[in-house]
Amino acid sequence: MTKIAITGASGFVGQTLAKKLIETSPDAQLILADVHQPPNPTKSSNVECIAADLTEASACQSLVSRSPDAVYILHGIMSSGSEADLELGLKVNFDSVRNLLDTIRVERPATKVIFTSSCAVFGRAAVKDVASEADIVPYPESSYGTQKLMIEFLINDYSRKGLIDGRVVRLPTIFVRAGAPTAAASSFVSGIVREPLHGQESELPVDPNIGIWLSSPRTLAHNLVHAMNVPADKFGHFRTVLLPGYSATSGEILDALEKVAGKEVRSLVKEKRDENIQRVVLSWPAKYDTSRARGLGFTEDVGLEQTIKDFMEADK
Amino acid sequence: MTKIAITGASGFVGQTLAKKLIETSPDAQLILADVHQPPNPTKSSNVECIAADLTEASACQSLVSRSPDAVYILHGIMSSGSEADLELGLKVNFDSVRNLLDTIRVERPATKVIFTSSCAVFGRAAVKDVASEADIVPYPESSYGTQKLMIEFLINDYSRKGLIDGRVVRLPTIFVRAGAPTAAASSFVSGIVREPLHGQESELPVDPNIGIWLSSPRTLAHNLVHAMNVPADKFGHFRTVLLPGYSATSGEILDALEKVAGKEVRSLVKEKRDENIQRVVLSWPAKYDTSRARGLGFTEDVGLEQTIKDFMEADK
Ligand SMILES: NC(=O)c1ccc[n+]([C@@H]2O[C@H](COP(=O)([O-])OP(=O)(O)OC[C@H]3O[C@@H](n4cnc5c(N)ncnc54)[C@H](O)[C@@H]3O)[C@@H](O)[C@H]2O)c1
Ligand SMILES: NC(=O)c1ccc[n+]([C@@H]2O[C@H](COP(=O)([O-])OP(=O)(O)OC[C@H]3O[C@@H](n4cnc5c(N)ncnc54)[C@H](O)[C@@H]3O)[C@@H](O)[C@H]2O)c1
Repeated sequence: MTKIAITGASGFVGQTLAKKLIETSPDAQLILADVHQPPNPTKSSNVECIAADLTEASACQSLVSRSPDAVYILHGIMSSGSEADLELGLKVNFDSVRNLLDTIRVERPATKVIFTSSCAVFGRAAVKDVASEADIVPYPESSYGTQKLMIEFLINDYSRKGLIDGRVVRLPTIFVRAGAPTAAASSFVSGIVREPLHGQESELPVDPNIGIWLSSPRTLAHNLVHAMNVPADKFGHFRTVLLPGYSATSGEILDALEKVAGKEVRSLVKEKRDENIQRVVLSWPAKYDTSRARGLGFTEDVGLEQTIKDFMEADK
Repeated sequence: MTKIAITGASGFVGQTLAKKLIETSPDAQLILADVHQPPNPTKSSNVECIAADLTEASACQSLVSRSPDAVYILHGIMSSGSEADLELGLKVNFDSVRNLLDTIRVERPATKVIFTSSCAVFGRAAVKDVASEADIVPYPESSYGTQKLMIEFLINDYSRKGLIDGRVVRLPTIFVRAGAPTAAASSFVSGIVREPLHGQESELPVDPNIGIWLSSPRTLAHNLVHAMNVPADKFGHFRTVLLPGYSATSGEILDALEKVAGKEVRSLVKEKRDENIQRVVLSWPAKYDTSRARGLGFTEDVGLEQTIKDFMEADK
């Protein structure tokens, strides 16, 4: 029986992934770990939920001692959070992840590890046009992107040596994200759809013509499961892959919202520029070449209108 | 009065740099630190020599408490060493350097830091033709290159935030290196010139047609001093620069040796293939675009014959 661990499992991606795994691999045993006690998303008895602060070495030990066959490393401090607090970002996004990787390579060598990196490894200044993992040098313009990138290279090295079987997926911004706004600089992207659909006002803090690279929760969940199942030798000499997504401006998002939900809903969104957020968002490239992902069998995204419809459907 | 610290100062580059600094900045105060008590290269009274294991936090503290205006971080475990012993490489090449950087940013913010990275951050598989810091994605094929690269990104992030004033120089293989053979996979490149010039036999472990990217000690010393003096804002949005060098095959090196020192000297070199060394050397790209270095005022190299003549001269 397969045993799959997910760290940061109380988070949005962790919960979405857990549901998908329960649906696609009903026999798998799941271990959900997070500093905040993770909810069991479907009350399945195959799911163990652990409260664990992974900055503590003993928590990493205890997780790995449960002998998972695959570990999804999802826990972390998001972009604004790690830009504001360098020490915390280093501690969680780098040190605790490295410690978990080291525990895995020593205690349970060759275990599959799926790590969610981010498109924030790219700085916009270094990307002339379209970003890709094979051709564009990542020069992050954030501490978050830097910490993710350092772990990427560590995973590549450990995998090259056969110490772990790592898979690094660079995630687009998730849209539409359910739940409360987050500390991520990109939080507004979901906010300008989610809040109006709930009858609440929402602020657009950036120029509506700035493009952002997005992925829907549905496609993301599918692709995260796929990341575990790609045969290791298909990756070639590096394990990093940009997940599929699509580029949209806030203006296009609002047009799609109006089309799907009407003028009145859209009118709940007010422009109110926040230069700090705009600066961070402008540091991310808006277009990505995902031919490597397609070659590895990852699935293309469903696009703007379908994603908003999916969100409304799930929200009911 | 300027105070300049050098770590790994007992090593070949450290000693070469120290001599150059004493020559070019006679008023500067030098602090030479190494786990092996560093020699004072010119017996100058402006030089303090400290035995310090920089994997110990107290050694980093003690070094930074001397209030250097610039720190050259040169200490490390070379390529073969860190490939064979992952833990040691991580401990010295990553952890101790990170700890030193963290001590500097906290105790002496905005200090100049010059870090010697390496062309081993590039794997040959990812480099179609010519490697450059702006256009070619570094996918290292060694733990040494990985550890160097992780520190590069950390230095870029700390510099972006103004916490340190970092400069990352990627060094070519130094040729001709004086002294004993080293644990570096590239050690033979100097060996096939140095040993025959001393009347000793030497082995060439790789195909004589494989190109290697080289820099002479003379040019390197000049460029390392220059790295400290480049105005910070000239670097743009990243601090990494490939130092100038030139590409030569072992065959070309031996031809130059014959031209400068005669047939008999050359005949002391025997081909004896070592697949392990060849594999590592083949993982390094042989050609580099150094336009960024030139734009920043770094100096081009002097070439093969002049370098061998310089070595013979210094050796007398
Ligand atoms: N959502 C996105 O748009 C997006 C985009 C790119 C990358 N990512 C990455 O995907 C992963 C998941 O993202 P998310 O949106 O679910 O984030 P999230 O913030 O919703 O979840 C992160 C979880 O990590 C947990 N965590 C933090 N510190 C911890 C610690 N010390 N020990 C254990 N758990 C800890 C938090 O409690 C939280 O539940 C993250 O690594 C993130 O960087 C997400
Ligand atoms: N020489 C080259 O061809 C070359 C090429 C690329 C990069 N580099 C880099 O340049 C730097 C200097 O290279 P080098 O050729 O002088 O190397 P070297 O091996 O001659 O010197 C390294 C020094 O670091 C010291 N050291 C090791 N562990 C230490 C510790 N824990 N605390 C304090 N000191 C410690 C060693 O004692 C040694 O004296 C290194 O960082 C190397 O990676 C060199």
